[in-house]
Amino acid sequence: MRNLSPVIFIVSVMFILLSIFMTLPVHLLAYSEVPNALAFIESAAICLGIGIVGILLTRRHASDLKPRFMFVLTVSSWFIIALLSCLPFYLSDLDITLAEAVFESTSGITTTGATVLSGLDGMDRDLLLWRSILQWIGGIGIIGMFVAVLPFLRVGGMRLFATESSEWTDKALPRMKTLSRGLLLVYLVFTIVAVTVYALSGMTLFDAFNHGLTSIATGGFSTSDLSMAKFDSNLILLEATFFMMLGSLPFFLFVREMYGQHGVLFRDQQVRLFITILLVVPALLTAYRWSISNGDMDPVDGYVNTLFNVTSVVTTTGYASEDYSAWGPLAFVVFFFLMFVGGCSGSTAGGMKIFRFQLSLIVLREQLMRLLHPRAVFTRNYNRRAVSDEIIASMIAYTFIFLLCLVLITTAMAALQLDFITSLSSALTVLTNVGPGLGEIVGPAGNFAPLPETAKWILSVGMLMGRLEILSVVIVLSPAFWRS
Amino acid sequence: MRNLSPVIFIVSVMFILLSIFMTLPVHLLAYSEVPNALAFIESAAICLGIGIVGILLTRRHASDLKPRFMFVLTVSSWFIIALLSCLPFYLSDLDITLAEAVFESTSGITTTGATVLSGLDGMDRDLLLWRSILQWIGGIGIIGMFVAVLPFLRVGGMRLFATESSEWTDKALPRMKTLSRGLLLVYLVFTIVAVTVYALSGMTLFDAFNHGLTSIATGGFSTSDLSMAKFDSNLILLEATFFMMLGSLPFFLFVREMYGQHGVLFRDQQVRLFITILLVVPALLTAYRWSISNGDMDPVDGYVNTLFNVTSVVTTTGYASEDYSAWGPLAFVVFFFLMFVGGCSGSTAGGMKIFRFQLSLIVLREQLMRLLHPRAVFTRNYNRRAVSDEIIASMIAYTFIFLLCLVLITTAMAALQLDFITSLSSALTVLTNVGPGLGEIVGPAGNFAPLPETAKWILSVGMLMGRLEILSVVIVLSPAFWRS
Repeated sequence: MRNLSPVIFIVSVMFILLSIFMTLPVHLLAYSEVPNALAFIESAAICLGIGIVGILLTRRHASDLKPRFMFVLTVSSWFIIALLSCLPFYLSDLDITLAEAVFESTSGITTTGATVLSGLDGMDRDLLLWRSILQWIGGIGIIGMFVAVLPFLRVGGMRLFATESSEWTDKALPRMKTLSRGLLLVYLVFTIVAVTVYALSGMTLFDAFNHGLTSIATGGFSTSDLSMAKFDSNLILLEATFFMMLGSLPFFLFVREMYGQHGVLFRDQQVRLFITILLVVPALLTAYRWSISNGDMDPVDGYVNTLFNVTSVVTTTGYASEDYSAWGPLAFVVFFFLMFVGGCSGSTAGGMKIFRFQLSLIVLREQLMRLLHPRAVFTRNYNRRAVSDEIIASMIAYTFIFLLCLVLITTAMAALQLDFITSLSSALTVLTNVGPGLGEIVGPAGNFAPLPETAKWILSVGMLMGRLEILSVVIVLSPAFWRS
Repeated sequence: MRNLSPVIFIVSVMFILLSIFMTLPVHLLAYSEVPNALAFIESAAICLGIGIVGILLTRRHASDLKPRFMFVLTVSSWFIIALLSCLPFYLSDLDITLAEAVFESTSGITTTGATVLSGLDGMDRDLLLWRSILQWIGGIGIIGMFVAVLPFLRVGGMRLFATESSEWTDKALPRMKTLSRGLLLVYLVFTIVAVTVYALSGMTLFDAFNHGLTSIATGGFSTSDLSMAKFDSNLILLEATFFMMLGSLPFFLFVREMYGQHGVLFRDQQVRLFITILLVVPALLTAYRWSISNGDMDPVDGYVNTLFNVTSVVTTTGYASEDYSAWGPLAFVVFFFLMFVGGCSGSTAGGMKIFRFQLSLIVLREQLMRLLHPRAVFTRNYNRRAVSDEIIASMIAYTFIFLLCLVLITTAMAALQLDFITSLSSALTVLTNVGPGLGEIVGPAGNFAPLPETAKWILSVGMLMGRLEILSVVIVLSPAFWRS
């Protein structure tokens, strides 16, 4: 119990922060209507109350956090915050079940973007705002977690990105502070730029604010059932493409650029492959769509829409401008495989992450060379740093458990009588935090509302597992963790 | 060119063996009708001719095989034999294209079991016999390759199974000979037992012979469009289950049992998990089917059919007794994932193989322990032998390129306008050498004939790549191989 005290203390502080965020929709919309003001005030009060009780009970042992309890802190904070932030939805005028409220808030905080709500265009603005704020918090939360916690936890090959500043020594603490401030600053500046640009391009201030928040967070919640198709503007699609891309780049590299290390961003191997994918895939897919359209497709519109939707899936945002699952079998298959990819590590994006594919490719090339030259000695390098066998092993562990979770969730969905495509794509889309799946129910033109309640609970857990790189959750759930 | 001489010599010897096998249907059916006798004689003559020319041209440098050219020998022999053994189909009365003939013979020699032929019940018996003989040759071919070549080639973690006798030293040669004779003996005995048991259980001698050959080879070709449903007998389904299982166990362990090392078979970790899967999955799936059937399903029939079809897919045989893709969403998903699994290494089965999943699990467990005890030292063991980092790396390389091929072939199928399920499951079923895919076209109730010609060529290559564990093919195709 004493070991858990510092965990409870820190989570309680987060509750108080959350309660402050919960009053934001009321403040921001103060000059217009706030139909669910009471729901927000009640929710904030509940969070504040729990937070204060938690702090009072644990403040004596607050500073005694043992390293291994970082796992408990990380996992429990995401799960509990996802749960508590459903309160405004659940207490509002919306006629939704607890499972739906939790699904929506989890989809928000994990920046997934899958939704059970429809009729967004006429929905109370305070609720729409809360959805966008949740994604924005989730975005900065995941960046913070990546920099502060994950390399330290050695999860899934993340040590590859550990620097001297992530070693948690006393000496590194000031550097850590500088980095954290830099990350927050970059995140804020990007958000302000996105909101401003959207507003100048014809969105209302309300739409610009919401989409600015959810673009940089690669979240994907929109203020319309049509998602980005609402604005019917190629300019806005291109801007959104750019902002989603920004949100999927490693934020710590932006900070290093800011502190004078010019060029680090584009020298990064992750960034290079990520941008290459976004240049090549939409171009090829547009060419294919054009070739089978019998000249029916406007090449410019076609390219912009392909680029936008591909970027939305690869960055795991989840906006849509068209029902891309109706673009024919090739597009369907390509979008399915793109859902695995994900953005760069250290960004707001989810997915399996570019660097894991690159590491696999490095191992593959090495093995081929070893088959040709059995006696030669090889060294692996990634971003000019040696890649140890331990990093490779931790990457396999991540990949294996990711695929295992995919199998388990898909099987669970199918046991609930959902068809193959719905089962597989909904399991995949929550684990990668993309948002929409494929098929008629959960595809870009559909909605998660028709799924059984059990499915919504399972998928909510899936989103959190995906966001936490799965292994940290498994660790905390393992009996060995609590035994030793 | 001089380096290639021994390769051409050995392949030429194989052609002569193949030409002998091509005359088998004519001999075996000598007392009944042999409608395509001419096609078989012509095919045999062509193979014999090419073989003799090859031997004459290369006999001077025949014994000078460099180790690296083992790759070329392995890959080219499978590809060329697949191509040549299509001759009887192509020259026969069948009205099929070259792509279809090659698809059928490749599906035979790789023991896949996917077919483009229908109306099997009324088909010329010599052609049916040739299909079964091809699978039988393919079965012993893959066992021989596993024992003689693959561990030596260090492909995909196969060194795990390398013993002192696979080191190719002069000292090991006699042991190698004993092992080869043992393998052939076991294979022959199993086949004879299977044929006899089938014949005693009510099959005609012709059906018993064909199904005996294709059961032990885990091939899956049948003499009826109904596959094993033709016999409408639970007894035969159970027998076939047993024989498919036999064919999927590591044959070298049977030989070691035969030479007095009792118990090695059931102490093997691969074998234990393989048998556990076949005990657990059909039982659970039957329970589920029964629970949703409203008492409509006979539990005994239901269990036997579930057991048989699950075994058929896990052993990558490809028989069917019912259209299991119509057993509801859960069964559909379970069969999809089972297609990946495959049998044990050193057997006639395909798939990703049980041991690779076990190695991944070992790495996963190790990583979890490492997260809990960062300073501890771990050793990996599999079947009481240490597992080096090199074996792990070669397993990743295999898995990565397997999944990459799955993505590429699926995308190619989709580009030919095939739907998602057909594209994905046909790519998977050829790479794992299972046979039937899922969905209306290539599912257990369907047939590969309606696919475009290009698809048939691509899938044929896929079957060969799957059978050759992919990496060996990639090596031979890499420019680096031919440069150095």
